[in-house]
Amino acid sequence: MDSIFEMIDNLRKKHPVIQNITNYVTINDCANILLACGASPVMTDDVGDSADVAAVSDGLTLNIGTLNTPIINSMISAGKVANRLGHPIVFDPVGVGISKIRTETVYEIIKKLNITVIRGNISELCYLADQSEIPIGVDAVSENHDFYKISEILKKLSHQLDTVIVATGPIDIITDGDSVCFCKNGDPYMKKVTGTGCQISSVITAFAASNSPIFESAVAAVCSYGICGEIARLRMCGYDGNASYRNYIIDAMCNLNCENFKQMAKYEIS
Amino acid sequence: MDSIFEMIDNLRKKHPVIQNITNYVTINDCANILLACGASPVMTDDVGDSADVAAVSDGLTLNIGTLNTPIINSMISAGKVANRLGHPIVFDPVGVGISKIRTETVYEIIKKLNITVIRGNISELCYLADQSEIPIGVDAVSENHDFYKISEILKKLSHQLDTVIVATGPIDIITDGDSVCFCKNGDPYMKKVTGTGCQISSVITAFAASNSPIFESAVAAVCSYGICGEIARLRMCGYDGNASYRNYIIDAMCNLNCENFKQMAKYEIS
Amino acid sequence: MDSIFEMIDNLRKKHPVIQNITNYVTINDCANILLACGASPVMTDDVGDSADVAAVSDGLTLNIGTLNTPIINSMISAGKVANRLGHPIVFDPVGVGISKIRTETVYEIIKKLNITVIRGNISELCYLADQSEIPIGVDAVSENHDFYKISEILKKLSHQLDTVIVATGPIDIITDGDSVCFCKNGDPYMKKVTGTGCQISSVITAFAASNSPIFESAVAAVCSYGICGEIARLRMCGYDGNASYRNYIIDAMCNLNCENFKQMAKYEIS
Repeated sequence: MDSIFEMIDNLRKKHPVIQNITNYVTINDCANILLACGASPVMTDDVGDSADVAAVSDGLTLNIGTLNTPIINSMISAGKVANRLGHPIVFDPVGVGISKIRTETVYEIIKKLNITVIRGNISELCYLADQSEIPIGVDAVSENHDFYKISEILKKLSHQLDTVIVATGPIDIITDGDSVCFCKNGDPYMKKVTGTGCQISSVITAFAASNSPIFESAVAAVCSYGICGEIARLRMCGYDGNASYRNYIIDAMCNLNCENFKQMAKYEIS
Repeated sequence: MDSIFEMIDNLRKKHPVIQNITNYVTINDCANILLACGASPVMTDDVGDSADVAAVSDGLTLNIGTLNTPIINSMISAGKVANRLGHPIVFDPVGVGISKIRTETVYEIIKKLNITVIRGNISELCYLADQSEIPIGVDAVSENHDFYKISEILKKLSHQLDTVIVATGPIDIITDGDSVCFCKNGDPYMKKVTGTGCQISSVITAFAASNSPIFESAVAAVCSYGICGEIARLRMCGYDGNASYRNYIIDAMCNLNCENFKQMAKYEIS
Repeated sequence: MDSIFEMIDNLRKKHPVIQNITNYVTINDCANILLACGASPVMTDDVGDSADVAAVSDGLTLNIGTLNTPIINSMISAGKVANRLGHPIVFDPVGVGISKIRTETVYEIIKKLNITVIRGNISELCYLADQSEIPIGVDAVSENHDFYKISEILKKLSHQLDTVIVATGPIDIITDGDSVCFCKNGDPYMKKVTGTGCQISSVITAFAASNSPIFESAVAAVCSYGICGEIARLRMCGYDGNASYRNYIIDAMCNLNCENFKQMAKYEIS
């Protein structure tokens, strides 16, 4: 196994084609962060298109940010092809629990497809784990939560769904059900930019399509994106705000290499 | 009542959840400007999703920029929930008068929902006011128009539709039917960026969800966005063009506070 | 006939309204590059809207990047109006050959509409020309290809479809079936930004709506965009990556004038 730091080099060498069926809010940023980390993005929408594109791709991201009915069939259709070909599928269950259709769609996708990684924020994943004591909502989880306890909940969820679980928040938690990684990279200012979560999900697909095992590739993806958030924050000055910051994060991924990755990574696997 | 300058602080403190059913051209900018001013954006699309999300939001923006048939029902559905909960609805009738479907949709939405604020450019609103002598079109109204006369037309429209009217252009006009505010903030270069109008509409929703009365909150929103346009313009140098300018406007909103708001505001209410 | 360098001035003077029915990945960039070059963009989606908008526009871009079934009828509907009014239609057959629906849609559009310019990458256009020896794929064509041979294939395709053909790649090829232009402007880094191809297609529509003949206007559009890619690259420094580069390209178009266009253009017509 390569170290997680070498995984960015592997990704740039493999240059995988990553298909994304995702929301139209952050789709441009997802395409550009994929280009930045060395992947080749393809964005699809229609059910008549998605399976054919899956057949010529190396990985698939499914994101229900702006869920609509026609896109659900596209996701299932592309996902079945990806499963047959053994390509990784990363699923971002945006807003699960907020509306009936989102919750039902999430369970439909989990049931019909073999998902490789589920990436959400902590409250979304605790909703999936049926842990009603964790509050639901975008910014609901603060640094005061008991992250060890949350990791135990997520380990169980990982076993139950047979996927790697990535929960991003003040501290990121990655687990394959046995091992757990806590990643402390990132910057609180990332919450001021729409779609950083969506971008991480796409980056995880790119790393997973270029590296193995999946658990370590997810750690590499999450750490590297967090590092980009830190580099981008250091670059901010003068009149910069969240729009410049958004560009700086993608720029940082473009320039990330094995060496600064290694220097800045802050994670522990137990 | 707080001064309009304090309203930005109120907004940042309340951190309202603002639902947007909007076009897919400028949706990312709308999400980032909402984050910049202190709101939490949620973008929805499907009719099966929009009512549930409206129930957990504090305000709703409806924008028909890339109108399509399925989205009309989403708008009505979310709007009814917002009305029942007493949440503000800001409606942006993009391109009313340009196509039959746009015009019909605008009248359907006005009829079926209680709209809190309608925000458009002057020609769109004069079309709604059935004032055929005002030319229709994106850039149709110049500084040479008689803004006093236009304000009288808009006052009448405000009474007729029972909403606050916000007409943005070389001079912005805000009226609740009785009072009228002329705002002279902003910069002509804002016309070189797609979606500044859409962004103002979303910002109005955020201010209205955090402040009262609605008329004053709309004045605060319009002035503050115009000030951001001015600050962003002052920042431009060298090779900068409309893409950098677009980022600088959002950055400026991110950094706007009560003090520079007060210093730079140029408006008069009569 | 004006020189191709004067065509940017003509475009800024005419300020044409350019309708785009395009993908939702790069639609915001397409709108901003159109504003940057002096056009007024209108983005539409629904079949009930697109014909009415076509009637008040000066040119039409059709791009199937995120193809879905409803949008095909919008394209046909708007295209018929544009044809009747004699307005240019630029068609970008994104990903033709990758999926059945894309390929069928491309042939349907070519059959039902009189297309003025088809713009694609070299492999997409060679697919259309039924040249199976040219590999299909986004980055499939390298500098090692025989561009003279490709230009002969494209000349034949231009005659066959009765349109101007624009193939962008390491070297851009523009042909009306008789004349051929090789343009060497641009920068390899443009491949790191999503949607540069989409942007070129929209810019071609703007130039074609403001200038004649079509062939020369396409040469002007392609060269000018390539020059923007070069200017933007020269501006990069420090921590800049593909996100900043994307903004710099649009900024450069905003500042391009007849003089620097003339100085930097690298093309030969034979």
